[in-house]
Amino acid sequence: MRRPRLGDIGEFGWIARLLRRTGAAGSRSGILLGLGDDAAVVRLAPPILVTTDVLVEGVHFRRTWGTPRQLGRRAFAVNASDIAAMGGIPAFALVDLRAPASVPVRYLDEVYSGFCRAAARYRTALVGGNTSRSRELSVAVTLLGSAAAGYATRAGCRVGDDLYVTGRLGLARAGLETLYDGKRSGVSVRRFLEPPVRVVLAQALVRTGLLGGMIDISDGCLQDLRHLCAASDVGAIVEAHRVPIAPGYRHAAGEGLRLALHGGEDYELLFSARPTLAHHLPALRRRARCPITRIGRIVAARDGLRVVDQHGQVLPVRHGGHDHFGRRGR
Amino acid sequence: MRRPRLGDIGEFGWIARLLRRTGAAGSRSGILLGLGDDAAVVRLAPPILVTTDVLVEGVHFRRTWGTPRQLGRRAFAVNASDIAAMGGIPAFALVDLRAPASVPVRYLDEVYSGFCRAAARYRTALVGGNTSRSRELSVAVTLLGSAAAGYATRAGCRVGDDLYVTGRLGLARAGLETLYDGKRSGVSVRRFLEPPVRVVLAQALVRTGLLGGMIDISDGCLQDLRHLCAASDVGAIVEAHRVPIAPGYRHAAGEGLRLALHGGEDYELLFSARPTLAHHLPALRRRARCPITRIGRIVAARDGLRVVDQHGQVLPVRHGGHDHFGRRGR
Repeated sequence: MRRPRLGDIGEFGWIARLLRRTGAAGSRSGILLGLGDDAAVVRLAPPILVTTDVLVEGVHFRRTWGTPRQLGRRAFAVNASDIAAMGGIPAFALVDLRAPASVPVRYLDEVYSGFCRAAARYRTALVGGNTSRSRELSVAVTLLGSAAAGYATRAGCRVGDDLYVTGRLGLARAGLETLYDGKRSGVSVRRFLEPPVRVVLAQALVRTGLLGGMIDISDGCLQDLRHLCAASDVGAIVEAHRVPIAPGYRHAAGEGLRLALHGGEDYELLFSARPTLAHHLPALRRRARCPITRIGRIVAARDGLRVVDQHGQVLPVRHGGHDHFGRRGR
Repeated sequence: MRRPRLGDIGEFGWIARLLRRTGAAGSRSGILLGLGDDAAVVRLAPPILVTTDVLVEGVHFRRTWGTPRQLGRRAFAVNASDIAAMGGIPAFALVDLRAPASVPVRYLDEVYSGFCRAAARYRTALVGGNTSRSRELSVAVTLLGSAAAGYATRAGCRVGDDLYVTGRLGLARAGLETLYDGKRSGVSVRRFLEPPVRVVLAQALVRTGLLGGMIDISDGCLQDLRHLCAASDVGAIVEAHRVPIAPGYRHAAGEGLRLALHGGEDYELLFSARPTLAHHLPALRRRARCPITRIGRIVAARDGLRVVDQHGQVLPVRHGGHDHFGRRGR
């Protein structure tokens, strides 16, 4: 018997299926009306954060790279990372799923499973969305979050702040390059397919009252640092030997640093904070169960953005990181 | 000189361009942080409405059918229609624009112009979004709205309610069929490309306190009535001779009624209300400057959904309306 495809059950069939499946995943306080009407109706403590990001087949992923559950999980994670970068709490999600009619229904079920499972871990409920036919498979997510305890922006860096990064960098990009090389296994591939969600740590940082500017690393550490510096009108010095390079994969000399500084796809947090944050680091690391590493400091805008070695010598760095349309990056 | 294409300016170039262009369109109260950070930060009176809908090239539109401004305008209108169907007020928008790198930047500028102009008329500000490379052009919009004065749902119909529709039906679908036939002009084509936005009327309806269930007609009057009936657990009788069929195009006998009942794309409101709404109709019509027509009444679920002629004779109606994945509709 042929397995049912999206074209067989139709849009209404799919919505009905989704309603049955997400009954449990959709439950959290604040939902006055969930899936199935013209719009969802929710309550959320102000101020409200809202962000959207997409995964397009052939641009951001290939179907052969991972499981549909990983795709759904990643669609949640990259959006939750934007909410985390603001120090907020994700609460409600909309999913815009597009697929050729030939895609098996089971594949799409699994995408939603991965999404809902990851979302549920952060008490985030699927309240709306859209399913449409399309030539290419894609998953777009819109997340609404709350920032009742305050929020961080890219513009908050001040001269004299220390510069920090969470986790270890470079592994996700190594995984992406491995996938492009046609291999499909290894810790780096998994790290690419399953980005971290730093929501809990980000909130803890906001609550210290010592946070400066913050961004999540999607385009590459230096590229995203440029965004921070531009928004805050400051410069920065990165000490290359302090950059936490991910272990777990073999790399040529200098290759690890290249991936860590330029690779992107890390979805770690890059932030500045007042020097007294140092006192909070042990507690924050325990809370977040991930490394938090000081990699440099914020300086005046006129001093620009520089990467230095342990002797203070300025290292040459190429400009640019990931860009969806340009020739650089992918 | 070759005109710049999306691939030439890159994602960051496009975002910078957008920031410059939407400075004015993005201004309204409640925006704590607009475009350019990881998430937007807004204030909005609860409860909050949120909806998303997409226009995909080759599925929902063809580039040759209209101007890019009309495409942008339509992307706003179909989403605002969902907010209107809840009786809410659109406030903040996110736009997920995807395009092949070969698309001229000017084309995308015009899409945003059309969107922002339509949005500004309803004091709706663009606060976020995403631009991505894609094989097919598409515009997805997420709208956040407010329902501080209360909201309507599909589940509000009660036995004894009158059934109403706004505007005149069928013309938009006639326009779509004209476009499929390769013609590109005429009042029906324009009606398809430029759907109405019934936000003001919908709010006035909510304020009467007499509104039952409400939905906007995108799939076809009868199909959307089925959604209303299912959500409200009621039946309905539609009096065919009362259905306001759009003039302005020539049609064979019965063709106008077919388009009005099954065509879809109207983006008019279909709603039930207590019989005393009749007293408010003159004022509501003046306010909305559009027809509001009683086309039938809500009956018990066991009586099903029937279309009758002026003698009360039940007319045969086909099942189904528009379905993005199925064979019916398009």
